[in-house]
Amino acid sequence: MELLQKKILKYGRVFDGNILKVDSFLNHQVDINLLTKVGEQFAKQFKAHGVTKILTIEASGIIVAAFTAQKLNVPMLFAKKTQSKNLSSSVYTTHVMSYTHGKVYDIFVEKEYLNANDTVLIVDDFLANGQALLGLIDIVKQSGAKLVGCGVAIEKGFQGGGDKLRSQGIRVESLACIDSMTDNTLVFRQ
Amino acid sequence: MELLQKKILKYGRVFDGNILKVDSFLNHQVDINLLTKVGEQFAKQFKAHGVTKILTIEASGIIVAAFTAQKLNVPMLFAKKTQSKNLSSSVYTTHVMSYTHGKVYDIFVEKEYLNANDTVLIVDDFLANGQALLGLIDIVKQSGAKLVGCGVAIEKGFQGGGDKLRSQGIRVESLACIDSMTDNTLVFRQ
Repeated sequence: MELLQKKILKYGRVFDGNILKVDSFLNHQVDINLLTKVGEQFAKQFKAHGVTKILTIEASGIIVAAFTAQKLNVPMLFAKKTQSKNLSSSVYTTHVMSYTHGKVYDIFVEKEYLNANDTVLIVDDFLANGQALLGLIDIVKQSGAKLVGCGVAIEKGFQGGGDKLRSQGIRVESLACIDSMTDNTLVFRQ
Repeated sequence: MELLQKKILKYGRVFDGNILKVDSFLNHQVDINLLTKVGEQFAKQFKAHGVTKILTIEASGIIVAAFTAQKLNVPMLFAKKTQSKNLSSSVYTTHVMSYTHGKVYDIFVEKEYLNANDTVLIVDDFLANGQALLGLIDIVKQSGAKLVGCGVAIEKGFQGGGDKLRSQGIRVESLACIDSMTDNTLVFRQ
C-alpha cells in the first residue's frame, strides 16, 4: 500500500533492537484517513470469504480492526490482556510472548462471542515474530471458527514471523512488508 | 442517544459491585454501526469548537475515539498504560486509580503529539468515578492545550464522577447516563 509505505519512509524512525517507531501516525497518535484506507484495503482483500467477525488484540490493533469491521459491516472483537471483573469465567485463553514489552502474558476472549459458526479475519497493526497472531490463531482454533487469514498494516519481514505463518498455510497479507531496516534505509518487499 | 440506551436495556447485564457488563456490543465485542453513530453524535455536539485532536485512553476508549476522529476529520491520540520501548523519555504522565482493576497505574502521552496549539476533545467508553477522565484532563493541562470537553458513551451517573467534573466547569456529555441500576431495573437520566 503506497500511502502507508510513504508514511513509514517520511515519519518512521528506527531505534536499536529492531524498533520501528511509527507512533506519530499508527499506534499512539493515529492518522484517521490513513487507517480508514487500511481498513478499506483489508476489506477488499478478504471480502469474498464471508467474514462474520474481525478479531484483534488490544490496544493498537483495535484501530485497524474498527475500520476493517466498518467497511465489511461486521462486528469486531478484541482479545483482552487482563482478566478484569468484567470478564466471565468462560473464556478462551492462551499465552503470548511480547518482545516489545519483554514478557509473557495471557490473552482472553469470552466464549460467547466466538464459535464454530464464525468466519474470522484477524488483523493487527504490527507483525514481527508473529507471537500475537499465533495467540489469536490459537483462540480461533479453540472456538472452532473458520480462519480466512490475517491482515497486518506493517510486517517486519526480516523477523520471520509472517513467513513462518505462511509456511503453515495461513494467508497473511501485510500492507507494508519491511525486508531490511537500518538507521538510514528501509527496504520494502516487492 | 436512544439507540445506545436500547442496546443497554436489551444486552447489558448488572453484576455485584456496580458492574454493568456491556461487552457484547461496546468494549470487547463491538457493534460497529452503533459505535459509528456514537462517533457521529460526539462530532455533532462538539464540531463548533475547532477541535484539532481527539484524546482517549487505551484500550476500549480507542474505538469511541476512532469514529469521533473519523467524523471530525482530525487525528486521535490514545494515552498508554505502559511505558514500552516505543515511547521516548519526553512524555506527559499522571496517575490514574482504576476501580475496575483495583489498582493505581500511570498513563503516558508523548509530548510531541500534544501542545498549546491543540484544541482537545476527550472521549471514552465509560465514566464512573471519573478517574480516567481526570487523568486525561491533567495531561491536557500539562500540555497547555485547550480542552473543549469530554464525551462518554455510558455514564454511571450514580457514581458521581461526571457531576463532579461538571461542577468544576468542564463540559461532559454522555449518551446514556444511568442514575440507578439494579439487577432488574436501569433508570436513565432525562
